[in-house]
Amino acid sequence: MSADERAIRDLVATWLAASKAGDLDKVLSLMADDVLFMAPGQKPFGKEAFAAASQGMKGLRFEAVSEVLEIEVLGDTAWCRTHLTVTATPPNGTPVRRSGYTLSILRKRPDGGWRMFRDANLLAAE
Amino acid sequence: MSADERAIRDLVATWLAASKAGDLDKVLSLMADDVLFMAPGQKPFGKEAFAAASQGMKGLRFEAVSEVLEIEVLGDTAWCRTHLTVTATPPNGTPVRRSGYTLSILRKRPDGGWRMFRDANLLAAE
Repeated sequence: MSADERAIRDLVATWLAASKAGDLDKVLSLMADDVLFMAPGQKPFGKEAFAAASQGMKGLRFEAVSEVLEIEVLGDTAWCRTHLTVTATPPNGTPVRRSGYTLSILRKRPDGGWRMFRDANLLAAE
Repeated sequence: MSADERAIRDLVATWLAASKAGDLDKVLSLMADDVLFMAPGQKPFGKEAFAAASQGMKGLRFEAVSEVLEIEVLGDTAWCRTHLTVTATPPNGTPVRRSGYTLSILRKRPDGGWRMFRDANLLAAE
C-alpha cells in the first residue's frame, strides 16, 4: 500500500473517530476550505454549513463503521469509495441507523496531507 | 476546453439523448464493462443490472436536462459533477420528476474514448 493510500485510509478513520468524539475542529481540519458535500434531496453544502449542522447535532451520540472499498491516487488528487454505517442516538431517544456508500474526491496539500474535496453521501435509513 | 473535457461533455449529452430515445445499446456502449452505479438505499450495481432495469422501464417516456458543473481530467481518469433533472412519464400516467447531483469517475480507453466507471447518483423526487 502506498503512503498516499495509507494517509487516505487514516483520514477516513480519523474523521469517524473525531465525529464520534464530537471533535468538530478535528473533522473540519480534514476538509479543503472549498469542500462540497452532496446528499440526496439537498443542495451541495460547504465547510461552514457542515459546521453549523454539526453544532445542531451536538446532543447526539454517534457510532460509525466504515469500510474503504476502493482508493485510487492520481498525483495530488485521489478518489475513494467506502461503505458506511452510522447510528445516531438522541439523548433518551431511539437510535437511527443509516447505511450506504460514499464516493469522494480528495486533494493532497503541499505539506503532503490529504483533505476531503468532494463527497457524495448515499446513506439511507435502514 | 481540452479535447478530453469536450469528449466527457459529449458522453453526458449522448447518454441522455440515447436514454430519451430508448437506445439502450448506445447507453451501454458508454460504460466500462466493470462500471458500478450507486444510488441511495441500493446496493451498487453493474452493466447487466443496468440493462435489466432499463428493459423494465421500456414503456416510460424520459425527458432529461443536465448541467455539467465540474470536470477534472487526470491522465486516463477523470471525475465529473453534474446536476440532473429527469422526468419519467408512464403511458397514460403522471410524470415523476427527480433531480439532484451526480459525482462520477470516468476512464479513457486506449482508443481515446471515455467510459463511465463509477457513478454516484443523488437524485431524489422533487
